[in-house]
Amino acid sequence: MNLISEMPREQLLKLEQELSRQYDEWCSRNLKLDMSRGKPASTQLDLTNGILNKLADYFYGRHLDARNYGCLEGIPEGRKFFADLLGLREDRILLGGNSSLNMMYDTIVRHWIFGTHGCTPWGKLPVVKFLCPSPGYDRHFAICEDFGIEMITIPMTPTGPDMDMVESLVATDDSIKGIWCVPLYSNPQGICYSDETVERLASMKVAAPDFRIFWDNAYGIHHIYEECKVKDIFAAIEEAGNPERVYYFFSTSKITFPGSGVALLATGPENYAESKKHMSIQTIGPDKLNQIRTILYLQNPENVHEHMRLLAEKLRPKFDLVLNTLNRELGGTGLAKWFSPKGGYFISLDTLPGCAKETLALAKNAGVAMTGAGSTFPYHHDPADSNIRIAPTYPPLDELKSAIELFCLCVKLASVRHFLEKSAQ
Amino acid sequence: MNLISEMPREQLLKLEQELSRQYDEWCSRNLKLDMSRGKPASTQLDLTNGILNKLADYFYGRHLDARNYGCLEGIPEGRKFFADLLGLREDRILLGGNSSLNMMYDTIVRHWIFGTHGCTPWGKLPVVKFLCPSPGYDRHFAICEDFGIEMITIPMTPTGPDMDMVESLVATDDSIKGIWCVPLYSNPQGICYSDETVERLASMKVAAPDFRIFWDNAYGIHHIYEECKVKDIFAAIEEAGNPERVYYFFSTSKITFPGSGVALLATGPENYAESKKHMSIQTIGPDKLNQIRTILYLQNPENVHEHMRLLAEKLRPKFDLVLNTLNRELGGTGLAKWFSPKGGYFISLDTLPGCAKETLALAKNAGVAMTGAGSTFPYHHDPADSNIRIAPTYPPLDELKSAIELFCLCVKLASVRHFLEKSAQ
Repeated sequence: MNLISEMPREQLLKLEQELSRQYDEWCSRNLKLDMSRGKPASTQLDLTNGILNKLADYFYGRHLDARNYGCLEGIPEGRKFFADLLGLREDRILLGGNSSLNMMYDTIVRHWIFGTHGCTPWGKLPVVKFLCPSPGYDRHFAICEDFGIEMITIPMTPTGPDMDMVESLVATDDSIKGIWCVPLYSNPQGICYSDETVERLASMKVAAPDFRIFWDNAYGIHHIYEECKVKDIFAAIEEAGNPERVYYFFSTSKITFPGSGVALLATGPENYAESKKHMSIQTIGPDKLNQIRTILYLQNPENVHEHMRLLAEKLRPKFDLVLNTLNRELGGTGLAKWFSPKGGYFISLDTLPGCAKETLALAKNAGVAMTGAGSTFPYHHDPADSNIRIAPTYPPLDELKSAIELFCLCVKLASVRHFLEKSAQ
Repeated sequence: MNLISEMPREQLLKLEQELSRQYDEWCSRNLKLDMSRGKPASTQLDLTNGILNKLADYFYGRHLDARNYGCLEGIPEGRKFFADLLGLREDRILLGGNSSLNMMYDTIVRHWIFGTHGCTPWGKLPVVKFLCPSPGYDRHFAICEDFGIEMITIPMTPTGPDMDMVESLVATDDSIKGIWCVPLYSNPQGICYSDETVERLASMKVAAPDFRIFWDNAYGIHHIYEECKVKDIFAAIEEAGNPERVYYFFSTSKITFPGSGVALLATGPENYAESKKHMSIQTIGPDKLNQIRTILYLQNPENVHEHMRLLAEKLRPKFDLVLNTLNRELGGTGLAKWFSPKGGYFISLDTLPGCAKETLALAKNAGVAMTGAGSTFPYHHDPADSNIRIAPTYPPLDELKSAIELFCLCVKLASVRHFLEKSAQ
């Protein structure tokens, strides 16, 4: 295919007809494929079925009968396990239930209702703003929307959020209370924050004393092609003299079973004490038997990394397929740009401006559900109507092949129609 | 022992010396017994160990792969199971995680931040009040305290809260937004709400359109001696035309394992939709594998009731021991009154006014931890300094025997000292 941006109208019309014919063929196949969410495939989950045989065989363990009430901060063995795995301090870890998203939401609830360090509770302020590096994770943005938190879009760069913009905003506007970060294999682009980005986030001057970084390390050990490393955020904030700046989140949702894993919150000593105080009113404790089940199954950090290598072997063919198909069908056409992530769960693609919605509508109409256009931006509004999140993990390989081929066709068809509209004007 | 209220001072002094001598003997035994919380004993938990062998063997079940994300409202089989067990509508049940307390807290969070049915969010009102039938459950009151909700103490009667007082307050004061109810085997008295109480709660006129009953049916099937029944609150509110008045809570914490059970929230259709909408932002879903594990183990309502009969057999000797000891040591002395509950987890005892703190301080000093004096009242303030919650479930029988004998001695000693002080004035 020649560069369609340079085709005369007549040739565009012919191309549109040909692509439409192909598209109709796809439609007649009555596909019903779901690539909308970052759900693991059943074959991934099979890798973990052994966890169901892990009876929690030390109920009467060193510290407590884990079948009974208590131990709000999670079992000691579990906190040590994740401290070792992630390089965290175990006395700063609140090991919780099955959802890190829930811990993020509840952290915002606590700031909203009670405030922190004597600052006005966010719910009593006229305006609360969060910085939202975009494209980003739609569920982060949905929390802000639920609370009426004003979202400021921060462009993503290959090294993380645009730090010049971040620094200049937080330095002067004390209504900016937080920033969402997925530092490793960012959702959806798979970007890894550079050391400089981490250092600048840790040390930047902030106008609001209760400004917090929501550090969602969702893909902290989820390597696929090679291993990226992100600088230790806690070391960085401590060095910078800002020990309370970060709430760090992690979960085993994409290590064992989503919905039946273990999530954690790690933070500075004062945040920790405050969070725990309110949590002690909210609940008597997390599901300790599931914590035991999880660490008995995962055994030790070396074994976790081996487990992640097995998972990566399940994921790599899917990422290969998507990336190869994008290269073959769209490479050199000028119709799309995409990132080749080294890990994580997604591939992010940018169509020509104004083509994302149309591309996804075409795909949906032909039976392929993908994450909605705009979802990766605050308020579901992608100003360029360009970004699309591809979630290759859930469909089996043959379905994924159909889905991504159809998707490429839809990118082309939407682009051609876009140029035709322009040339008609 | 003669009625000490009628003893002359000299006789009181002798009695004080004798009781003090006995007390010193107890102290020299260096006891360390915990009767402070309603924790099940390990022997109770042993009854449920089989649940750990229940692999969730229908992952690939009718509706979904329960190992994966999704199903915010809980697994369909689980909702049906608890609907059948409790006489609820399954389409009004949100089957959640491990803690009904957490669901109560989060329900208040939603009203606090977002409001309901277009009413002003509670967090934006100058004053929010809750009615607190007392003695009551300290963790309910702790939630109110955390939020700064003003608590109004409502006396408990043998048929439930003083409904004349409740009705007259809610009819005129629109800042009263809720009432805490433990309708069956109330904590700590073991009182069962009468049909009339349920009907009046359901049909009373309320000034606040967003007034809600927090119906914590924690002991809904926890019979020990005989089976009390409470009138169906949902039938009552529907009949009265107030279908959105109730949030109903239940959990298996005291059926299977506390902290590793399954909790639920049931409510009217509009509350349900609102709650679910915000929960869909807070989390992707509950631990469905634990829901499956729980219902595979419990099997069906008949089996649950059989399981509860086995649990009651563990509890009955403990309740017998406490009630018999109270009768033997304190019966006819005029020093204390107590309830004989038919089920639940506690025995509530009232000392003479002004003697509860002293009694518990003596017990603590001799090595027996009990729920703190005042805990059963808002702000930890028992105006009569009289109510004590006895939690007999956790200690083994021999420890319980020591603890309750010592406790009775402490009641006597505190009472005698109380009379001595009075007679000295």
